[in-house]
Amino acid sequence: MALIVKKFGGSSVGSTEKIKAVAQRILDEKQPGDKIVVVVSAMGDTTDDLIKLAKGITKDPYQYTREMDMLLTTGEQVSISLLTMAFKALGQKAVSLTGSLAGVKTNSVHTKGKIKDIQPKRIFDELDKGNIVIVAGFQGCNELGDPVTLGRGGSDTSAVALAGAMKADVCEIYTDVDGVYSADPRVVKNARKMKEITYYEMLEMARLGAGVMQPRSVETGQMYNIPIHVRSTFTNKPGTIIREEYTMEEKEFIIRGVADDTNVAKIAVLGIPNTPGIAYSIFSKLAENNIDVDMIVQSIRNVEKNVTDMVFTTTLDDLNNAKQIIDKVADQLNAVAVLIETDVAKVSIVGAGMLGNPGIASRMFKALSENGINIDVISTSEISISCLIKAEKIKEAVNAIHNEFFKD
Amino acid sequence: MALIVKKFGGSSVGSTEKIKAVAQRILDEKQPGDKIVVVVSAMGDTTDDLIKLAKGITKDPYQYTREMDMLLTTGEQVSISLLTMAFKALGQKAVSLTGSLAGVKTNSVHTKGKIKDIQPKRIFDELDKGNIVIVAGFQGCNELGDPVTLGRGGSDTSAVALAGAMKADVCEIYTDVDGVYSADPRVVKNARKMKEITYYEMLEMARLGAGVMQPRSVETGQMYNIPIHVRSTFTNKPGTIIREEYTMEEKEFIIRGVADDTNVAKIAVLGIPNTPGIAYSIFSKLAENNIDVDMIVQSIRNVEKNVTDMVFTTTLDDLNNAKQIIDKVADQLNAVAVLIETDVAKVSIVGAGMLGNPGIASRMFKALSENGINIDVISTSEISISCLIKAEKIKEAVNAIHNEFFKD
Repeated sequence: MALIVKKFGGSSVGSTEKIKAVAQRILDEKQPGDKIVVVVSAMGDTTDDLIKLAKGITKDPYQYTREMDMLLTTGEQVSISLLTMAFKALGQKAVSLTGSLAGVKTNSVHTKGKIKDIQPKRIFDELDKGNIVIVAGFQGCNELGDPVTLGRGGSDTSAVALAGAMKADVCEIYTDVDGVYSADPRVVKNARKMKEITYYEMLEMARLGAGVMQPRSVETGQMYNIPIHVRSTFTNKPGTIIREEYTMEEKEFIIRGVADDTNVAKIAVLGIPNTPGIAYSIFSKLAENNIDVDMIVQSIRNVEKNVTDMVFTTTLDDLNNAKQIIDKVADQLNAVAVLIETDVAKVSIVGAGMLGNPGIASRMFKALSENGINIDVISTSEISISCLIKAEKIKEAVNAIHNEFFKD
Repeated sequence: MALIVKKFGGSSVGSTEKIKAVAQRILDEKQPGDKIVVVVSAMGDTTDDLIKLAKGITKDPYQYTREMDMLLTTGEQVSISLLTMAFKALGQKAVSLTGSLAGVKTNSVHTKGKIKDIQPKRIFDELDKGNIVIVAGFQGCNELGDPVTLGRGGSDTSAVALAGAMKADVCEIYTDVDGVYSADPRVVKNARKMKEITYYEMLEMARLGAGVMQPRSVETGQMYNIPIHVRSTFTNKPGTIIREEYTMEEKEFIIRGVADDTNVAKIAVLGIPNTPGIAYSIFSKLAENNIDVDMIVQSIRNVEKNVTDMVFTTTLDDLNNAKQIIDKVADQLNAVAVLIETDVAKVSIVGAGMLGNPGIASRMFKALSENGINIDVISTSEISISCLIKAEKIKEAVNAIHNEFFKD
């Protein structure tokens, strides 16, 4: 007997057949006495179709954020009603609730709303009547009652926040992968599915390029201390549980995962005066323009002339904007040159265990060196180490490092 | 400077192009200082598409009325958001409100809801901010906040009830015809568009087969005493105003319209005992089965044997059910025979003016007789006279009567 929040994404409810399959699967797994809340996204392409419709009215409908929310929230409203009918057709009592009816209160930042509060009284009332409660993900309402969508990663966040507000036993996120792996299974053949991973590690993995979960929903899980079970829509096998701390058995691997990221560009500003505030003058301009900077290395070029080089990475998406800004700054600073490299990639290891294990970094460097892979830039956080290497070597690098830490 | 509620149906907002045209038209007609509320239905085939989707889940989705409402209310939510964007793209401040946000409170009879109350505070707030307010027709919410649809004729009723609750100057209903005619223009070539008609007359016209307005919205207009302006989506010409009383100029025609109805079947129960309660024994059974009976005539067949005939009409749709019931009753009453005729039609004249004008009926009968049309059954109400005739004669009959009363 447990209180469980289950979340199914758009591809899991992409057709009426799939919706019926989801209902059947939930009933098959339901234990007597379980109380179940199902959070669903809009069906498959619905959101894209609605956006296309809006573009028939005006070229840039997203400038009308409130109306986009009014439009897009219909997508989940359709899927909750259909999934509820599917349960009822199988003889299970069920009821659908929009984000608003489920008590999901947001701020008024339309299309990018944040959850301020959840008042789950109605959900509990419906559960007490024996219903499975189907809630529209990705949405809530502001003080006026107007629909507000939560933006990227919103449905997962809805589910985890609901689980938190209801003090559920677990929040299950059903996806097209069956858990969190020690590396991208498309890159590393013998990648291992983790049974457990901590919120911090998962966040670091996400930050470093592993795409399974949006950081936002993991942070929400951490805030409420709700275990998040990432598992497959297509199998019944257990997936990966993201939680505060490990259970005993899972401590065997110091490193939790190897992440790779090829959406990286390197920018080097060469030969600038090594004076106080030089880093600020560069990075404040980038921050003003919402450009995320990742690895930063400053190194002395010429001690006598007190001249330095500044090297950092950004995403390929931000590169053009970043270059324009950096070219201006370099001009003002009389830099010798600005070098751009796009054939780079980042390989990272993540694991809370590395804190008390000083040999981890050198094992990573050894694995790369033994495979003849040169390290360009290194950066570290409390629970991760990242190396910038040539993009063409990334697959080899991930496999070498994975082999170093996960050979059984 | 007026407060106007305008209602556009599904075909008027059937595409993004049509939605943009509606927005442009409203702005073209808007006078400075006008406060405008626009009530819209779901786009064209949206409702049918949603029903089809639900049928992919279960054969009879309408058994899940609450979930059907959750599903179908998305249709209008899409059209209000798009129409609002269209206004904004034209530089007009505008805001969309679902039935719930507009304060339309209903009972909980899902898919056939009735409006209990309207609390238009939010609408007034938005009008005061300079917005055109776009409200989803056909929907409101119950005490729990759950969406409830209003059933057949619901969008017109939404519009008229909103106009009533807001004490609007007029409620304009935009349709594919440009007003209420003295007869069906497809039947009578020189049918006249009425400038005005009273609620009572319009209701009687609707009851007798004229399809322009659902009786429900006319009754709502009468209840709130809100003038309803029925006009064309496609032209700017004034249509017909349905109101409590005529203005002077419009009194010239005693008869307001000639209605025809071919959805009629005649049932005759012949040779039954003429005893007290005989009508009750027949018609109570039909009423129990929700079968509407229209014209009723009882005539003596044989005075000595005290035997009578009972003749009445029903719709063709109800005929099969009615026949089954009547066959049983006839058996119990030892009736001589039950005769069914389906090749009949009803022609009616409607006009509040006939109350003080005793010659009206005879002018109608004369028009029919001069054209060799035999009258089978006659029935009258305070403001109407109906004759049952052979179906094949209906066009001729309507024209003959129209010519009698509307020749200028």
